Amino acid sequence: MAKSPTVTLTTDFGLSGPYVGAMKGAILQTCPQARLVDITHQIPPHDIWTAAFVLAQSAPEFPEDTVHLVVVDPGVGTERSILAARMAGQQFVFPDNGVITFIKDLLPLQAIASVRNSQFFSQAGRSMTFHGRDIMGPVAGHLAGGLSLDKLGPQPNRYTLLEIPLPQTRDETIIGQVVYIDHFGNCVTNIPRQMIETHFAAPDRVKVVCGDSPVGRIEGTYAFVPAGQAVALYNSMAMLEVAVNQGSARERFEAGIGTEVRVDPSETQETSSD
Amino acid sequence: MAKSPTVTLTTDFGLSGPYVGAMKGAILQTCPQARLVDITHQIPPHDIWTAAFVLAQSAPEFPEDTVHLVVVDPGVGTERSILAARMAGQQFVFPDNGVITFIKDLLPLQAIASVRNSQFFSQAGRSMTFHGRDIMGPVAGHLAGGLSLDKLGPQPNRYTLLEIPLPQTRDETIIGQVVYIDHFGNCVTNIPRQMIETHFAAPDRVKVVCGDSPVGRIEGTYAFVPAGQAVALYNSMAMLEVAVNQGSARERFEAGIGTEVRVDPSETQETSSD
Amino acid sequence: MAKSPTVTLTTDFGLSGPYVGAMKGAILQTCPQARLVDITHQIPPHDIWTAAFVLAQSAPEFPEDTVHLVVVDPGVGTERSILAARMAGQQFVFPDNGVITFIKDLLPLQAIASVRNSQFFSQAGRSMTFHGRDIMGPVAGHLAGGLSLDKLGPQPNRYTLLEIPLPQTRDETIIGQVVYIDHFGNCVTNIPRQMIETHFAAPDRVKVVCGDSPVGRIEGTYAFVPAGQAVALYNSMAMLEVAVNQGSARERFEAGIGTEVRVDPSETQETSSD
Repeated sequence: MAKSPTVTLTTDFGLSGPYVGAMKGAILQTCPQARLVDITHQIPPHDIWTAAFVLAQSAPEFPEDTVHLVVVDPGVGTERSILAARMAGQQFVFPDNGVITFIKDLLPLQAIASVRNSQFFSQAGRSMTFHGRDIMGPVAGHLAGGLSLDKLGPQPNRYTLLEIPLPQTRDETIIGQVVYIDHFGNCVTNIPRQMIETHFAAPDRVKVVCGDSPVGRIEGTYAFVPAGQAVALYNSMAMLEVAVNQGSARERFEAGIGTEVRVDPSETQETSSD
Repeated sequence: MAKSPTVTLTTDFGLSGPYVGAMKGAILQTCPQARLVDITHQIPPHDIWTAAFVLAQSAPEFPEDTVHLVVVDPGVGTERSILAARMAGQQFVFPDNGVITFIKDLLPLQAIASVRNSQFFSQAGRSMTFHGRDIMGPVAGHLAGGLSLDKLGPQPNRYTLLEIPLPQTRDETIIGQVVYIDHFGNCVTNIPRQMIETHFAAPDRVKVVCGDSPVGRIEGTYAFVPAGQAVALYNSMAMLEVAVNQGSARERFEAGIGTEVRVDPSETQETSSD
Repeated sequence: MAKSPTVTLTTDFGLSGPYVGAMKGAILQTCPQARLVDITHQIPPHDIWTAAFVLAQSAPEFPEDTVHLVVVDPGVGTERSILAARMAGQQFVFPDNGVITFIKDLLPLQAIASVRNSQFFSQAGRSMTFHGRDIMGPVAGHLAGGLSLDKLGPQPNRYTLLEIPLPQTRDETIIGQVVYIDHFGNCVTNIPRQMIETHFAAPDRVKVVCGDSPVGRIEGTYAFVPAGQAVALYNSMAMLEVAVNQGSARERFEAGIGTEVRVDPSETQETSSD
């Protein structure tokens, strides 16, 4: 156990109000030596999908023993469970609503518990509307302080996962979709690099299409095309991404979550171009 | 004194510029071992009221010996004082403009000092426009490092408090108002749960009205009504709140700070409904 | 070497996605005891100028041995170098694109290295699009952990600096421009206090003009004029700034980066006023 254990925070609380601070205080109340690391508090309100994606793309980078607290919790106060899990030596505290959908595919699940033992909850009066402060924050603090996961409660019979759209193949083409759009307007798809490299004889010469508009070949990085030009590339998660160098692919392609992205073999593209 | 004392930051500096970083550096310059915890830097510019509210809803959650630095300071460089206070074992550094209005009702005031002793200010050249960096940050660092509050200066004769609107009763009805709207659009009122439970014979069956629009009964939590439906509830601060499950009450009720919220006994509501 | 070395972060990653968290994880992976301090993640995308300005106005406040990581990197994955530098006992890791332009004038440069030694990069698979996570974050972690700068690679033959517009004098007048606009709408110019005090016989009575609109004399601080009134002052960096007390000079003067700001001697202003 590190002397200054790390607790990361991923929420939809926004950055303008008291909720982030209140939850940080509650963590420090149970683990005064914790180091608090903000991942983000700007998950769109109630957007479990985005929370699941952001968690999966950031948490794996952290060292062992890190505790990740995820509070995007539209069902707060209802019968939905609160869970705690250990994956690849890191620990996670979260409402049982699917926020671990993506990370579960990246990190091996070692243990999971229903958070029921109220001796590890806030000892102040508890609300039905802020379990981040009253339950999940204190529990994350206890885990950071060395509490064993199995003390929190029994293993659940099941837990919730979101349905993930998988890319499809049709003839020579791979058909996927935009699953995340970042701050720069870069459009991340659900098409893994490996799928393209396995599927095509000449993966270096495929043509990418976003919605109805051609993007071009797959390049090494953004700046391999002139500023303002569209570019397809494999991003830092080895997924196909549609971008505009120093611009916004979201705007250029009028893209949103679910916009279709197609990868055609070069020949098809050549014959269909006019 | 903890080995890694905590200094929290609450400001209206915003998150895009150099001011937050400069003040953090100034704190670490006087207290290299400090743990810095952001509460928020997105208090609306010069909005002392919101700062006072956010501070009161987050600071009480922190453990003893925490130092809370609050820099929302439209009067910077004028004759307004800078104060430091100890409340319930925590310490606060702030301009004397009323930002402690709400927290003073929650935590007992143990000591208060006018910050005048310039040996604890930044020793670099000082400005008239950035006392967060030049005075309050360094003073917070010194307090975190163990300096006694009374070394900062004498006890002031008076300090500033904001005028707080209190809910009124008229016949059977409680009339209050929206005092804070959070990131989700939830509208927090100035009507405490206890007032409703004392005032009404059947507090479970009261009807809440926001502006001119009925909200409904008081439920346990957001998700006790279907998504998109309005709901009244007691929030995590035990205050009456008007919300929309997974939506925005601010938009639904076109509410703002000061919008009237009424709590009627169920009978009145029944006869007045059409 | 402090027991808990500080690594600050200045990026254009925004606060809503996974990139900030991923980079923080990568730093902690190489330096588990690091204290992470956010300066800002809201540099406008790809805006090297603003990053350079923000860094210069915040980094000098930090104590010795702080490591500053700056990732505003439109050229990621191209042949642009990554550099590490020591200035005034602090260390900086950054892409070679000019982000050190302003700070280099404030802190003496002691050493500089091209970051080439890949043993200090992430040992996981590396991308061409996220050197903050894969190279710069780990290198910052190693420097925070005590690695000597010269282990990273050789001294570069040259490094990039931005061209900075300097204020000009014409007859009795100083002509400068807005170089930064902060969160409050305050317009910071490139005219140093010292230039005004040297140039004018009566610096207390000069008249400031922003674009075509008079601002007035130079006052001590914002609140020396009534709320809502325009005011010129020397800001916390001792530069001339155009502001509106409790309002936005950006809006009042329709100002942007590059807007001309003029300082006239009082006589000229008097004769030219109508």
